[in-house]
Amino acid sequence: MVKTNAFYAQSGGVTAVINASACGVIQTARAHKDRIGKVFAGRNGIIGALTEDLIDTGKESAAAIEGLRFTPSGAFGSCRYKLKSLEANPREYQRLIDVFKAHGIGYFFYNGGGDSADTCFKMSQLSQTLGYPLQAIHLPKTVDNDLPITDCCPGFGSVAKYVAVSTLEASFDVRSMCKTSTKVFVLEVMGRHAGWIAAAGGLVEDHGIPVVILFPEIVFDQAKFIARVDTLVKQHGYCSVVVSEGCHHADGTFLAEQGTRDAFGHAQLGGAAPVVAGIVKDALGVKFHWAVADYLQRAARHIASKTDVKQAYELGKRGVELALKGHNAVMPTIERTSDTPYKYRIGMAPLAKVANVEKFMPRDFISADGFGITHRCKLYLRPLIEGEDPPRYRGGLPLYTTLKNFAVAKKLPAFEMK
Amino acid sequence: MVKTNAFYAQSGGVTAVINASACGVIQTARAHKDRIGKVFAGRNGIIGALTEDLIDTGKESAAAIEGLRFTPSGAFGSCRYKLKSLEANPREYQRLIDVFKAHGIGYFFYNGGGDSADTCFKMSQLSQTLGYPLQAIHLPKTVDNDLPITDCCPGFGSVAKYVAVSTLEASFDVRSMCKTSTKVFVLEVMGRHAGWIAAAGGLVEDHGIPVVILFPEIVFDQAKFIARVDTLVKQHGYCSVVVSEGCHHADGTFLAEQGTRDAFGHAQLGGAAPVVAGIVKDALGVKFHWAVADYLQRAARHIASKTDVKQAYELGKRGVELALKGHNAVMPTIERTSDTPYKYRIGMAPLAKVANVEKFMPRDFISADGFGITHRCKLYLRPLIEGEDPPRYRGGLPLYTTLKNFAVAKKLPAFEMK
Repeated sequence: MVKTNAFYAQSGGVTAVINASACGVIQTARAHKDRIGKVFAGRNGIIGALTEDLIDTGKESAAAIEGLRFTPSGAFGSCRYKLKSLEANPREYQRLIDVFKAHGIGYFFYNGGGDSADTCFKMSQLSQTLGYPLQAIHLPKTVDNDLPITDCCPGFGSVAKYVAVSTLEASFDVRSMCKTSTKVFVLEVMGRHAGWIAAAGGLVEDHGIPVVILFPEIVFDQAKFIARVDTLVKQHGYCSVVVSEGCHHADGTFLAEQGTRDAFGHAQLGGAAPVVAGIVKDALGVKFHWAVADYLQRAARHIASKTDVKQAYELGKRGVELALKGHNAVMPTIERTSDTPYKYRIGMAPLAKVANVEKFMPRDFISADGFGITHRCKLYLRPLIEGEDPPRYRGGLPLYTTLKNFAVAKKLPAFEMK
Repeated sequence: MVKTNAFYAQSGGVTAVINASACGVIQTARAHKDRIGKVFAGRNGIIGALTEDLIDTGKESAAAIEGLRFTPSGAFGSCRYKLKSLEANPREYQRLIDVFKAHGIGYFFYNGGGDSADTCFKMSQLSQTLGYPLQAIHLPKTVDNDLPITDCCPGFGSVAKYVAVSTLEASFDVRSMCKTSTKVFVLEVMGRHAGWIAAAGGLVEDHGIPVVILFPEIVFDQAKFIARVDTLVKQHGYCSVVVSEGCHHADGTFLAEQGTRDAFGHAQLGGAAPVVAGIVKDALGVKFHWAVADYLQRAARHIASKTDVKQAYELGKRGVELALKGHNAVMPTIERTSDTPYKYRIGMAPLAKVANVEKFMPRDFISADGFGITHRCKLYLRPLIEGEDPPRYRGGLPLYTTLKNFAVAKKLPAFEMK
């Protein structure tokens, strides 16, 4: 058995639990010192590999690595940078090989979403195309929950829990004020193409809350929407609306971009929530409030789902184990075997089938009228937000870990990013 | 000692802990059955008293009342309704007396902010002016923390904790993305006139986060603001901005209302956050994200401050004890005696000195440049966000209490609200 170093990088938008996957990778690698030498992390994702800006995770204490399990965001820095194809950009691939060769790296762990799975797949082909022996394993991560094959993606369960809890709390607030004040509360959540995150807002129905969900999968029908809100407000005195940022009109334009201009003629910067709130006000004349959760939702480690944290860790761990077994071009997955009680096992998917495939909400997860979620969807969602796994606190604030992130000495000439 | 019934009502915007005060009132009243008969709650605040829509809290189980300690929002409904002066509206005061007389109510507990303290003060004068024996006690509640005399107001500590935790988490997110993506994150928080809530965002400095606070107390200076953000972004690669909804220009206009119109000519509905983000983008050209926390911040019982919950309960309890001691026209207060370790005792303020007085951030709580908080301010804020007091969860969601809220049979003719 050959001993080789490993490279780990975080890619794309970070989450509340991507560092739990990093923790799983590093702790598992440390437990296999006979097979894995150093674990290098890319500073700011794949850019760290291209610029030979590597972090020596071996310099971090066991306590610091354990702290990653409880720390949101990307501890080594992430980036939005998609490698082109080998044909279009051979220079970058050659550089990656040079860096990996210089630092004795034989394992490539890439922690990201759909675009990253594509990059990881390209890297996995390098042993054949450029003759460099590299095992590339993709570790799933995306709040959007839109990767195929795996039942769910680490990061999603926690953002779903945040959205469900926030919707519940704000709805209780509106319920108590609706007699003389706000009657409609609008919460905008992430999800440009898939409505998984917005769907989580539907879970508050079980707590007696009237809620309308606006999915990217369902074309926005203003008249039907207003009628639904009106019915709920008449029935309950109030209602909540959870709108996905990707909610759009029949012609594909997002609700957020309805030609709004400021005093200087600039396009409005606003999101979908104020637009939806405005539509409600114009049609029904009721008082409204709106919130845009933005980064708060994906960074909210304090209210992370225990299921999600556990799976994020397990998939990081399994990624290393798959590499040690000789796998290449694969991604560990969650295979659900039962809803109630919730059971799953860790599976494996070939990256060729993961890269560039988006998974949307199945139509039978969305209610017939398009404004809610079905029982099937609830069965799917409930276990994913189950359990709490709070961080420790000091002085009222969570004790999140900031790593030292010591740089590895460079061995190669500088590389110019283009 | 005369035995009489009590009336309790929630007023104005609700909080994460106003129900903890209700819990303190009801449990303490139940412990003094020799002196206090029934505790009636007003459905939707004082409107419930005017319309004789009373709730018999005696019908709620001990477990349900205990559940209030962990439940955000107003369990009996709140309202935004300010009584005019006795001279301007004798009809309403006479009606309140009629309702109290009909239901044997001698104690009036009003749980609210500045406006409510004014109403409560007017009620306290009724025994003299209308000859009805009533003891009126005000229980402080406001996320804005703007009541005078008391060191802090129940509701504030929890929203401060929410803002500090959210700013910390989102800043970690931005820090890890700033190499290729978002460099400036803007969070809008409540506080129309006083910057207490925004100030809480400054606590993340202790965690190494570069943050700029925009207070309502400091006139917005765009050039200075941009220079500050530019400096921090150059120094750290990113920064966070916490903007109070009340931040305004020299002429008094809010940042949120800068003449923005949509395609139909309607005034823009947006808040301060998108405006600030737009200013940053226009001046510095960096990528930004923004969030508007709105109701999420004041309803976030899941991340409530233990100090805040405790004080909310204690002030409710003390309110009843003050009534039993024969006090009228007073409000129990928090009197801080030490910052570190944090110590306080419960005091008492005459309502005449509380009503219609707003407490702003002292200038020496705001840094010289106007964009941050001072050490003194941190000493003030830290104990208020200290400790966690999580609710119980089931199925991933907090177990919040919804009361039965049984109506008391009406004894009087209907009253027309005008």
